[in-house]
Amino acid sequence: MDTYDSNNIFAEILRGEVPVHKVYEDGATLAFMDTTPRTDGHVLVIPKVRARNILDVAPDILADLMIKTQRIAVAIKTALKADGLSIQQYSESAGGQTVFHLHIHILPRYRGVPLRSPAEIMPGNSLLAAQAESIRKALA
Amino acid sequence: MDTYDSNNIFAEILRGEVPVHKVYEDGATLAFMDTTPRTDGHVLVIPKVRARNILDVAPDILADLMIKTQRIAVAIKTALKADGLSIQQYSESAGGQTVFHLHIHILPRYRGVPLRSPAEIMPGNSLLAAQAESIRKALA
Repeated sequence: MDTYDSNNIFAEILRGEVPVHKVYEDGATLAFMDTTPRTDGHVLVIPKVRARNILDVAPDILADLMIKTQRIAVAIKTALKADGLSIQQYSESAGGQTVFHLHIHILPRYRGVPLRSPAEIMPGNSLLAAQAESIRKALA
Repeated sequence: MDTYDSNNIFAEILRGEVPVHKVYEDGATLAFMDTTPRTDGHVLVIPKVRARNILDVAPDILADLMIKTQRIAVAIKTALKADGLSIQQYSESAGGQTVFHLHIHILPRYRGVPLRSPAEIMPGNSLLAAQAESIRKALA
Protein backbone atom coordinates (compact mmCIF):
# COMPACT_ATOMS: atom_id res chain seq x y z
CA MET A 1 0.00 0.00 0.00
CA ASP A 2 1.39 3.38 -0.98
CA THR A 3 0.67 5.78 1.86
CA TYR A 4 2.53 8.64 0.22
CA ASP A 5 0.55 11.80 -0.48
CA SER A 6 2.42 14.00 -2.96
CA ASN A 7 0.50 17.04 -1.73
CA ASN A 8 3.19 18.01 0.79
CA ILE A 9 5.67 20.86 0.95
CA PHE A 10 8.76 18.68 0.46
CA ALA A 11 7.27 17.12 -2.68
CA GLU A 12 6.64 20.69 -3.91
CA ILE A 13 10.27 21.55 -3.13
CA LEU A 14 11.45 18.49 -5.07
CA ARG A 15 9.27 19.56 -8.02
CA GLY A 16 10.94 22.98 -7.90
CA GLU A 17 7.69 24.73 -6.99
CA VAL A 18 9.04 26.18 -3.74
CA PRO A 19 12.52 27.73 -3.51
CA VAL A 20 14.92 26.56 -0.80
CA HIS A 21 18.44 27.30 0.33
CA LYS A 22 20.14 24.14 -0.95
CA VAL A 23 23.03 22.68 0.99
CA TYR A 24 23.55 19.48 -1.01
CA GLU A 25 21.96 17.70 -3.94
CA ASP A 26 22.61 14.53 -5.89
CA GLY A 27 20.47 12.12 -7.88
CA ALA A 28 18.94 10.57 -4.77
CA THR A 29 19.07 13.27 -2.10
CA LEU A 30 18.30 16.92 -1.40
CA ALA A 31 19.40 18.83 1.70
CA PHE A 32 18.29 22.38 2.50
CA MET A 33 18.01 24.91 5.33
CA ASP A 34 14.97 24.58 7.59
CA THR A 35 13.15 27.93 7.42
CA THR A 36 12.06 27.68 11.08
CA PRO A 37 15.32 26.35 12.53
CA ARG A 38 15.33 24.89 16.03
CA THR A 39 19.06 25.70 16.17
CA ASP A 40 21.26 27.89 13.99
CA GLY A 41 22.05 25.83 10.92
CA HIS A 42 19.16 23.35 11.15
CA VAL A 43 19.18 21.35 7.90
CA LEU A 44 16.68 18.84 6.48
CA VAL A 45 17.83 15.90 4.37
CA ILE A 46 15.26 14.16 2.16
CA PRO A 47 15.28 11.37 -0.42
CA LYS A 48 13.97 12.13 -3.90
CA VAL A 49 11.81 9.01 -4.01
CA ARG A 50 8.26 8.84 -2.67
CA ALA A 51 8.65 7.79 0.96
CA ARG A 52 6.37 8.80 3.80
CA ASN A 53 8.69 7.98 6.69
CA ILE A 54 10.83 5.22 8.22
CA LEU A 55 7.89 2.81 8.06
CA ASP A 56 7.78 2.62 4.26
CA VAL A 57 11.15 3.73 2.90
CA ALA A 58 13.22 1.06 1.13
CA PRO A 59 16.18 0.02 3.33
CA ASP A 60 18.79 0.82 0.65
CA ILE A 61 17.33 4.32 0.23
CA LEU A 62 17.45 4.87 4.00
CA ALA A 63 21.04 3.61 4.16
CA ASP A 64 22.13 5.97 1.37
CA LEU A 65 20.23 8.86 2.98
CA MET A 66 22.09 8.31 6.27
CA ILE A 67 25.48 8.22 4.56
CA LYS A 68 24.67 11.60 3.00
CA THR A 69 23.29 12.85 6.33
CA GLN A 70 26.55 11.98 8.03
CA ARG A 71 28.63 13.83 5.42
CA ILE A 72 26.41 16.88 5.65
CA ALA A 73 26.35 16.79 9.46
CA VAL A 74 30.13 16.79 9.63
CA ALA A 75 30.24 19.72 7.18
CA ILE A 76 27.66 21.68 9.19
CA LYS A 77 29.63 21.16 12.40
CA THR A 78 32.77 22.47 10.68
CA ALA A 79 31.11 25.33 8.84
CA LEU A 80 29.12 26.65 11.78
CA LYS A 81 31.63 25.73 14.50
CA ALA A 82 29.07 23.66 16.36
CA ASP A 83 30.03 21.74 19.51
CA GLY A 84 27.82 18.75 18.80
CA LEU A 85 24.96 17.42 16.70
CA SER A 86 21.48 16.04 17.28
CA ILE A 87 19.94 13.93 14.52
CA GLN A 88 16.18 13.37 14.62
CA GLN A 89 13.64 11.57 12.45
CA TYR A 90 9.92 11.52 13.17
CA SER A 91 7.39 9.04 11.78
CA GLU A 92 3.63 9.63 11.91
CA SER A 93 1.89 12.43 13.83
CA ALA A 94 2.32 10.71 17.20
CA GLY A 95 6.04 10.50 16.43
CA GLY A 96 6.24 14.25 15.82
CA GLN A 97 5.97 14.21 12.00
CA THR A 98 4.25 17.21 10.43
CA VAL A 99 5.35 16.89 6.78
CA PHE A 100 4.67 13.46 5.34
CA HIS A 101 7.74 13.04 3.17
CA LEU A 102 10.61 11.27 4.93
CA HIS A 103 13.11 13.74 6.34
CA ILE A 104 16.08 13.72 8.67
CA HIS A 105 16.72 16.73 10.90
CA ILE A 106 20.35 17.73 11.39
CA LEU A 107 20.53 20.04 14.39
CA PRO A 108 23.96 21.53 15.06
CA ARG A 109 24.25 22.12 18.79
CA TYR A 110 26.15 24.77 20.72
CA ARG A 111 27.25 24.45 24.33
CA GLY A 112 24.56 25.75 26.71
CA VAL A 113 22.05 26.53 23.94
CA PRO A 114 18.78 24.55 24.15
CA LEU A 115 16.68 23.62 21.13
CA ARG A 116 14.11 26.24 20.22
CA SER A 117 10.47 25.21 19.94
CA PRO A 118 9.38 24.32 16.40
CA ALA A 119 8.53 27.49 14.45
CA GLU A 120 9.73 29.74 17.31
CA ILE A 121 11.78 31.88 14.92
CA MET A 122 11.94 32.47 11.19
CA PRO A 123 15.29 33.95 10.12
CA GLY A 124 15.66 36.13 7.06
CA ASN A 125 16.68 34.70 3.71
CA SER A 126 20.07 36.39 3.84
CA LEU A 127 21.11 34.54 6.99
CA LEU A 128 19.91 31.19 5.63
CA ALA A 129 21.66 31.84 2.33
CA ALA A 130 24.93 32.64 4.11
CA GLN A 131 24.70 29.51 6.27
CA ALA A 132 23.91 27.34 3.24
CA GLU A 133 26.92 28.78 1.40
CA SER A 134 29.29 28.10 4.29
CA ILE A 135 28.02 24.50 4.55
CA ARG A 136 28.38 23.97 0.80
CA LYS A 137 31.98 25.20 1.04
CA ALA A 138 32.70 22.76 3.88
CA LEU A 139 31.24 19.94 1.78
CA ALA A 140 33.28 20.79 -1.30
CA MET B 1 42.68 9.91 15.69
CA ASP B 2 40.73 7.37 17.71
CA THR B 3 38.54 9.29 20.12
CA TYR B 4 36.86 6.15 21.44
CA ASP B 5 37.17 5.48 25.18
CA SER B 6 36.25 1.86 25.93
CA ASN B 7 35.47 2.78 29.53
CA ASN B 8 31.76 3.34 28.83
CA ILE B 9 28.64 1.40 29.78
CA PHE B 10 27.81 0.27 26.24
CA ALA B 11 31.33 -1.15 25.77
CA GLU B 12 30.80 -3.02 29.05
CA ILE B 13 27.48 -4.33 27.74
CA LEU B 14 29.19 -5.50 24.53
CA ARG B 15 31.84 -7.27 26.62
CA GLY B 16 29.05 -9.04 28.51
CA GLU B 17 29.97 -7.34 31.78
CA VAL B 18 26.55 -5.75 32.25
CA PRO B 19 23.30 -7.66 31.57
CA VAL B 20 20.67 -6.16 29.28
CA HIS B 21 17.28 -7.09 27.91
CA LYS B 22 18.28 -7.90 24.34
CA VAL B 23 15.89 -7.18 21.50
CA TYR B 24 18.14 -8.06 18.55
CA GLU B 25 21.71 -9.17 17.98
CA ASP B 26 23.82 -10.06 14.97
CA GLY B 27 27.52 -9.95 14.16
CA ALA B 28 27.54 -6.17 13.77
CA THR B 29 24.70 -4.89 15.94
CA LEU B 30 23.15 -5.12 19.40
CA ALA B 31 19.74 -3.69 20.39
CA PHE B 32 18.43 -3.67 23.94
CA MET B 33 15.86 -2.00 26.20
CA ASP B 34 16.82 1.40 27.65
CA THR B 35 16.62 1.03 31.45
CA THR B 36 15.43 4.63 31.88
CA PRO B 37 12.99 4.75 28.96
CA ARG B 38 11.68 8.10 27.77
CA THR B 39 8.67 6.24 26.33
CA ASP B 40 7.38 2.71 26.91
CA GLY B 41 9.51 0.45 24.72
CA HIS B 42 12.51 2.79 24.31
CA VAL B 43 15.25 0.73 22.63
CA LEU B 44 18.92 1.51 21.95
CA VAL B 45 20.69 0.19 18.85
CA ILE B 46 24.49 0.11 18.85
CA PRO B 47 27.21 -1.14 16.52
CA LYS B 48 29.72 -3.65 17.86
CA VAL B 49 32.70 -1.72 16.50
CA ARG B 50 34.47 1.05 18.36
CA ALA B 51 32.64 4.22 17.30
CA ARG B 52 32.14 7.29 19.43
CA ASN B 53 29.29 8.88 17.47
CA ILE B 54 28.25 10.04 14.00
CA LEU B 55 31.46 12.05 13.65
CA ASP B 56 33.78 9.02 13.55
CA VAL B 57 31.71 5.98 12.54
CA ALA B 58 32.52 4.43 9.15
CA PRO B 59 29.73 5.20 6.64
CA ASP B 60 29.10 1.53 5.83
CA ILE B 61 28.72 0.72 9.53
CA LEU B 62 26.25 3.61 9.94
CA ALA B 63 24.28 2.48 6.89
CA ASP B 64 24.02 -1.08 8.20
CA LEU B 65 23.08 0.21 11.65
CA MET B 66 20.21 2.23 10.19
CA ILE B 67 18.88 -0.73 8.21
CA LYS B 68 18.76 -2.72 11.45
CA THR B 69 17.26 0.26 13.26
CA GLN B 70 14.46 0.44 10.72
CA ARG B 71 13.65 -3.27 11.07
CA ILE B 72 13.64 -3.04 14.85
CA ALA B 73 11.58 0.18 14.83
CA VAL B 74 8.87 -1.44 12.70
CA ALA B 75 8.82 -4.46 15.04
CA ILE B 76 8.56 -2.23 18.12
CA LYS B 77 5.65 -0.32 16.61
CA THR B 78 3.85 -3.61 15.92
CA ALA B 79 4.71 -5.29 19.22
CA LEU B 80 3.80 -2.35 21.44
CA LYS B 81 0.96 -0.98 19.29
CA ALA B 82 2.64 2.41 19.03
CA ASP B 83 1.10 5.19 16.92
CA GLY B 84 4.41 6.58 15.69
CA LEU B 85 8.15 6.61 16.18
CA SER B 86 10.85 9.13 16.99
CA ILE B 87 14.44 8.24 16.11
CA GLN B 88 17.21 10.24 17.76
CA GLN B 89 21.00 10.22 17.69
CA TYR B 90 23.18 12.54 19.75
CA SER B 91 26.82 13.35 19.11
CA GLU B 92 29.05 14.99 21.72
CA SER B 93 27.89 16.48 25.02
CA ALA B 94 26.49 19.62 23.39
CA GLY B 95 24.45 17.35 21.13
CA GLY B 96 22.94 15.54 24.11
CA GLN B 97 25.29 12.54 24.20
CA THR B 98 25.98 11.06 27.65
CA VAL B 99 27.42 7.63 26.74
CA PHE B 100 30.28 7.86 24.27
CA HIS B 101 29.60 4.79 22.17
CA LEU B 102 27.45 5.48 19.08
CA HIS B 103 23.81 4.68 19.75
CA ILE B 104 20.47 5.26 18.07
CA HIS B 105 17.40 5.85 20.21
CA ILE B 106 14.16 4.25 18.98
CA LEU B 107 11.28 5.91 20.81
CA PRO B 108 7.86 4.38 20.14
CA ARG B 109 5.28 7.14 20.47
CA TYR B 110 1.68 7.02 21.60
CA ARG B 111 -0.95 9.60 20.75
CA GLY B 112 -1.05 12.38 23.37
CA VAL B 113 1.88 11.01 25.40
CA PRO B 114 4.90 13.32 25.60
CA LEU B 115 8.48 12.10 25.98
CA ARG B 116 9.54 11.69 29.60
CA SER B 117 12.68 13.48 30.80
CA PRO B 118 15.83 11.35 30.64
CA ALA B 119 16.04 9.10 33.74
CA GLU B 120 12.58 10.20 34.95
CA ILE B 121 11.53 6.59 35.55
CA MET B 122 13.26 3.22 35.91
CA PRO B 123 10.85 0.33 35.24
CA GLY B 124 11.33 -3.07 36.83
CA ASN B 125 13.16 -5.86 35.04
CA SER B 126 9.99 -7.87 34.53
CA LEU B 127 8.35 -5.15 32.44
CA LEU B 128 11.49 -4.63 30.33
CA ALA B 129 11.85 -8.40 29.87
CA ALA B 130 8.23 -8.69 28.69
CA GLN B 131 8.62 -5.77 26.26
CA ALA B 132 11.86 -7.23 24.88
CA GLU B 133 10.18 -10.60 24.38
CA SER B 134 7.24 -9.10 22.49
CA ILE B 135 9.62 -7.15 20.23
CA ARG B 136 11.74 -10.25 19.56
CA LYS B 137 8.57 -12.10 18.55
CA ALA B 138 7.59 -9.30 16.15
CA LEU B 139 11.09 -9.45 14.62
CA ALA B 140 11.03 -13.23 14.15
